[in-house]
Amino acid sequence: MHDAAIAALSDLLGDRLVTTRADRELHGQNETYYPLTLPDAVAYPESTEEVSAILKICNEHLCPVVAYGAASSLEGQHLAVRGGISLDMNRMNKLLKVNAEDLNAVVQPGLTRLTLNEELRATGLFFPVDPGADASIGGMTATRASGTTAVRYGTMRENILAMEAVLADGTIVRTGSQARKSATGYDLTHLLVGSEGTLAIITELTVRLQGQPEAISAATCRFDSVEDAVNCVILTIQSGLPMARIELLDQNMVKGFNKYANAGLPETPHLFLEFHGTPAGVAEQSETFGAIAEDFGAQDFKTATKTEDRNALWAMRHKAHYASAALGDGGHLMTTDVCVPISRLAEAVTQSQEAAGRYGLCVTIVGHVGDGNFHCGISLDPTNDEELKRGKAFSAELNELALRVGGTVSGEHGIGVGKQAYMEAEHGSALIMMRAIKTALDPKNILNPGKMLPSNA
Amino acid sequence: MHDAAIAALSDLLGDRLVTTRADRELHGQNETYYPLTLPDAVAYPESTEEVSAILKICNEHLCPVVAYGAASSLEGQHLAVRGGISLDMNRMNKLLKVNAEDLNAVVQPGLTRLTLNEELRATGLFFPVDPGADASIGGMTATRASGTTAVRYGTMRENILAMEAVLADGTIVRTGSQARKSATGYDLTHLLVGSEGTLAIITELTVRLQGQPEAISAATCRFDSVEDAVNCVILTIQSGLPMARIELLDQNMVKGFNKYANAGLPETPHLFLEFHGTPAGVAEQSETFGAIAEDFGAQDFKTATKTEDRNALWAMRHKAHYASAALGDGGHLMTTDVCVPISRLAEAVTQSQEAAGRYGLCVTIVGHVGDGNFHCGISLDPTNDEELKRGKAFSAELNELALRVGGTVSGEHGIGVGKQAYMEAEHGSALIMMRAIKTALDPKNILNPGKMLPSNA
Repeated sequence: MHDAAIAALSDLLGDRLVTTRADRELHGQNETYYPLTLPDAVAYPESTEEVSAILKICNEHLCPVVAYGAASSLEGQHLAVRGGISLDMNRMNKLLKVNAEDLNAVVQPGLTRLTLNEELRATGLFFPVDPGADASIGGMTATRASGTTAVRYGTMRENILAMEAVLADGTIVRTGSQARKSATGYDLTHLLVGSEGTLAIITELTVRLQGQPEAISAATCRFDSVEDAVNCVILTIQSGLPMARIELLDQNMVKGFNKYANAGLPETPHLFLEFHGTPAGVAEQSETFGAIAEDFGAQDFKTATKTEDRNALWAMRHKAHYASAALGDGGHLMTTDVCVPISRLAEAVTQSQEAAGRYGLCVTIVGHVGDGNFHCGISLDPTNDEELKRGKAFSAELNELALRVGGTVSGEHGIGVGKQAYMEAEHGSALIMMRAIKTALDPKNILNPGKMLPSNA
Repeated sequence: MHDAAIAALSDLLGDRLVTTRADRELHGQNETYYPLTLPDAVAYPESTEEVSAILKICNEHLCPVVAYGAASSLEGQHLAVRGGISLDMNRMNKLLKVNAEDLNAVVQPGLTRLTLNEELRATGLFFPVDPGADASIGGMTATRASGTTAVRYGTMRENILAMEAVLADGTIVRTGSQARKSATGYDLTHLLVGSEGTLAIITELTVRLQGQPEAISAATCRFDSVEDAVNCVILTIQSGLPMARIELLDQNMVKGFNKYANAGLPETPHLFLEFHGTPAGVAEQSETFGAIAEDFGAQDFKTATKTEDRNALWAMRHKAHYASAALGDGGHLMTTDVCVPISRLAEAVTQSQEAAGRYGLCVTIVGHVGDGNFHCGISLDPTNDEELKRGKAFSAELNELALRVGGTVSGEHGIGVGKQAYMEAEHGSALIMMRAIKTALDPKNILNPGKMLPSNA
């Protein structure tokens, strides 16, 4: 397939256009339940100009192009479901510039968030978005990633100031500016954030940075019921407390951590928290939260101010995927996420638990509940059709529940191939707008075809 | 002109389709230097369905439609420069719902921000975006407004969760959801925020609300030079102090307030500030700011904690437009704004002052400097061609300066008719994307033609 495009790309890139089975397999894998999906070839561009040249060739030959970063996407966004080229951005992984005075940095899309933060350490600044995985900044942008700190610092939507990107026909564009805000022109930056590589290939990003807080304090506490935990979260957010992190773990998730990481936690719902600010501010926040939590019967309120204790806590939290998988027999996991208005969070979480029981599934719930966003980790064997069917039925019910209460079928994992069936239900006639934009910007549908938009075959 | 469309609209709307000279004149005026620009008729829709029916008719008859709210736009956005219909949204001005638990409200576009805040008073919540004028929420959205509090609470970009809008062909769409974040589909909400009525007509908005801070304290201080004042701002922002407001007034602006409002201030550059938080937090912020300001030679640091004193301060600040106009002979003002990276703010402000002198113009500088955004108020007589020419030459130099330092030609006033000449310089090939989107969504170019995009004739 796509022999003419591959030949032309080979002329352009030499040995940076690879068609070996091994490399195609590597780029066809994913972290969740989607089957191995091979691209026809893998391209390794090293510059924006090369990305432009690649897209020109692919556009001419109607050859699909799918950007590939850290492959940590959870709805199959990086899989070449219509064949074509896996565009591996990992050689474009430099931190180009830190504008410390302007609290931003210019990065290439292949740079991962942990490497960025490592390189920023001496500046006293950090990049706050934390989806757990060490994702690439480009991939995080394309999927509108968020994570544990979004409740305080926003998602990728709030943290991208400007971009360079390449359109389907090879045109290189720049969106946004180095200024913190602008009222000029259409907001192309935000149009590309979350577009899952279907409108353009991102080649450079200006990301907002934050000053390291003077003081950080983490805490954990536990509740008798998930309702108590969630209602505590709701009141905390409504009180305007500037939580840096507020994460819910249901009793199954705690079991998973006990099994996978020997956490030794009592197996009841927990909140994991973090406060950022001045020393006095952090103390005040912690005290205010403590008073709210007490009203909901919180027990074992423990704080961790030492860096190593905090790091250990969040390192464990970030293993939720594997800890959930560990609860099942085969170690496999179907993972999903929804986001609901915070006023409906308690009912959404408890109804999800009820549904899991009804389907006879082992499901963990963990989430960025300050945003109304939670994940269900469904332990199942993806090669067992019957189990997979039950998993999908549960997931469908979860999505319908989210929409029924005014929410969205994904707070952070995105649509990819997994959730296209819900685009119509969630967006209705706005899909007409989305399709018109897609057709206008990528008339030959070479950019990540088969993703996001249900008609994008 | 557009007789067929007007006849059909008249059948639809009865006496809510008005063609009197008086009404057309009212809708053809503006706050700044653009000449009177008459629409052919004024329509007063009362529902989304009516807006849809109006657009269907206008699309069929190729009749331009320009949304009209409080007419407080400053770059002529609401003027029907190609004739057609002024779509007066002021009858769609209801607060439809307050979702206090979710910290949002659903409003119609004609509701003004002060009325919204008045209606919210009993809830303990407020809508934070404050551009000064009592603009309509729909208009603020369409121009991506910001203002004095954007440094803390963001611009309209950060404060719109969801929308209902009508496309050129009458299709009604809903964007976003009631959840705080989503990773599904293209970000149509942000595409419409700042689109100046050129892509769709907004008919309903879900806006984010904030809890009233427990404590608020305002302050003023003055500096020997504008560089000292700006450098104080830069360090304050870089320190991560969560300023709620931080406004610069240069010496001319202070003169204007003395003349217009008998402010009795020493005629040197000032900062007007506001701190929001807990009582302890506000005290800590104020103290930290005071220490920074002292390093830059600040004098007369005065705080105002009483509501009436704070209100008087900001009421005066919001009269900057009129106070600037008062400095000139005829009371007329050309106003402009740019936004630059904060590291370049001091040079941008001082170069603007230098340029004003060079052009022999009386220019005030006032701005939301925490965002790098400042305004120049140019006193001139718009009927004096020579003065207008100098004013425009100064404004051109200011825009070029903003772009040279990595900024944008408008932080909040937008493009409208006034700044189209800079779209190419600021956005380059990204204009191709903007034009493609405009053509895809409004192929007959009936939505606010002649605005924003230079080719949008």
